[in-house]
Amino acid sequence: MTASYREAGVDQDAADALIPRYAAEAARTRVASHVVSLGGFAGLFPLEDLMARGFKRPALALSTDTTGTKIDLLRKAGLHRTAGWDCVAMNVDDVVCCGAEPLLFVDCIATERLDPDEAVAIVGGVADACVESGCELVGGETAQLPGLLSPGAYEVMGTCVGVVDLDNAWGPHRVKPGDDIVGLASNGVHSNGFSLVRRVLGDDDPPPGLLAETAIYARKLLGLADEVEVRAAAHVTGGGLADNLARALPDGCGATIDVSCWDRPGIFEWLAERGISEEEMRATFNLGVGMIAITPAGARAVEVLGGLGVSAWVIGEVEANRPIELV
Amino acid sequence: MTASYREAGVDQDAADALIPRYAAEAARTRVASHVVSLGGFAGLFPLEDLMARGFKRPALALSTDTTGTKIDLLRKAGLHRTAGWDCVAMNVDDVVCCGAEPLLFVDCIATERLDPDEAVAIVGGVADACVESGCELVGGETAQLPGLLSPGAYEVMGTCVGVVDLDNAWGPHRVKPGDDIVGLASNGVHSNGFSLVRRVLGDDDPPPGLLAETAIYARKLLGLADEVEVRAAAHVTGGGLADNLARALPDGCGATIDVSCWDRPGIFEWLAERGISEEEMRATFNLGVGMIAITPAGARAVEVLGGLGVSAWVIGEVEANRPIELV
Repeated sequence: MTASYREAGVDQDAADALIPRYAAEAARTRVASHVVSLGGFAGLFPLEDLMARGFKRPALALSTDTTGTKIDLLRKAGLHRTAGWDCVAMNVDDVVCCGAEPLLFVDCIATERLDPDEAVAIVGGVADACVESGCELVGGETAQLPGLLSPGAYEVMGTCVGVVDLDNAWGPHRVKPGDDIVGLASNGVHSNGFSLVRRVLGDDDPPPGLLAETAIYARKLLGLADEVEVRAAAHVTGGGLADNLARALPDGCGATIDVSCWDRPGIFEWLAERGISEEEMRATFNLGVGMIAITPAGARAVEVLGGLGVSAWVIGEVEANRPIELV
Repeated sequence: MTASYREAGVDQDAADALIPRYAAEAARTRVASHVVSLGGFAGLFPLEDLMARGFKRPALALSTDTTGTKIDLLRKAGLHRTAGWDCVAMNVDDVVCCGAEPLLFVDCIATERLDPDEAVAIVGGVADACVESGCELVGGETAQLPGLLSPGAYEVMGTCVGVVDLDNAWGPHRVKPGDDIVGLASNGVHSNGFSLVRRVLGDDDPPPGLLAETAIYARKLLGLADEVEVRAAAHVTGGGLADNLARALPDGCGATIDVSCWDRPGIFEWLAERGISEEEMRATFNLGVGMIAITPAGARAVEVLGGLGVSAWVIGEVEANRPIELV
């Protein structure tokens, strides 16, 4: 027997042939022409421009995350670009929560078998979302993992590097009782809770809106901060509103969130009808608020966000010595 | 029917309970006490210490990669720590190829079902390898992906951020004909070519050494560069010696590599006996040389590396107007 890597399910030539196609997608994300490559083992990003911008105490902010099990439905629906887009969304909106601007992104695609057109579509979606969030795609990896993933499956992981001036960074340390809690509209379940979604969906076709691209808030939040003081932010992902808001509040502070004060996208009604309890919904999904900003000027923030094309509502107020409750 | 996230195969409470266990592992990797967390959405790394070290033109170097299909054998053998270690090895030794020192690491574990002890062991191995390579584990994600991975399977992806002074960065631009090509000993197949390995292994037990921890070269190479001018480096992974050496040489330059001038670990003999041709072996595996350093002072480099505990050999010389050939 002669065994070859190709017979074992790994096609190195096909992977190599993808490099220029990936590079073309990545080129669309260039903010400046300063990303350099020296031999191709790693992407290099000079910090001089950053220094020249006058950060007093620059700090890198890192996030890593996957698209999650939504990806299985996206793949079956042929929405490969969204599979890439959503991975970026999950990461850049974690990074922005400390006030950092997304700077660099690398993606890592794991495939059961390499489908070159699917892979390029995924990277195309990654690039689209990098453009949307203002960060540069500086590298990536496509790993062929026959036998490890389910037949035909792929997963997308990514890492975002952002930068923030530590003196201006957002976080619980800046939040005070009396601050307004502003909710930014989601466009559905985004890319969280899909193991539960898939369970109630079974073999049915996905309802309208279920597979929509995850909203990206990074530029909107940074734009908001140009006009209004933002003290903290919370990306509403797994764990829902309460668990994620808790990460943005100082110890002992809480809030009463009135869930009737915003429009809940219809997809959540559909999920409820399929047998998911309100309690489970609240602990798993964003329920219509995909990002939270905490600011002393809630009404003005809602106005500014409206001007940026984002529906938003003051959904509560930070209170001392209180738990977080959804009512 | 009432559907819950837990019934759907995702245990958020178990995932939350892992956070302090992960944090204890990450704490072992702290180089200084300067990593800060503001609300926990992203790890923050101040750049002040870096600036204080006098980099003239600091640049970030990014790499992202997976442990690959070796992980399936590691998991079945209970070698979860190695699954984490190898992911770091794949990344830090890409980053060091431009002369960058590994600085920060984030890991992303994808599991079919979360096994808390396996997950902590994986992160423990990540932390061990971060200590070995001098970088700090600043964040991570554990994604539960029921249905997407094969039953019981997990995968580990990671991203390394390194830093290099652009004026001193290594790469093909610095390499000249006449430079020595120094090969650093591998301890086996490392974490590459395992789809092929698994095919020839079948259901047999792995032979001794097959699942050894991947050697990490980052600190050794940086130590070498303290004593000898290193002009470029090539991490020998998928594609073997020729393809990876090519990434470290300027256009038009090549070399004749005499594969008899180093000790080939026994595992490669075992693979050959299982039916993998020499041609396929050369195109897939490192054959005993896991890292290449290009330097004008090969003999001295071998001596310095020996002092650092790394076996090394001058395996060729850079030549103009020549292909890369293994003889």
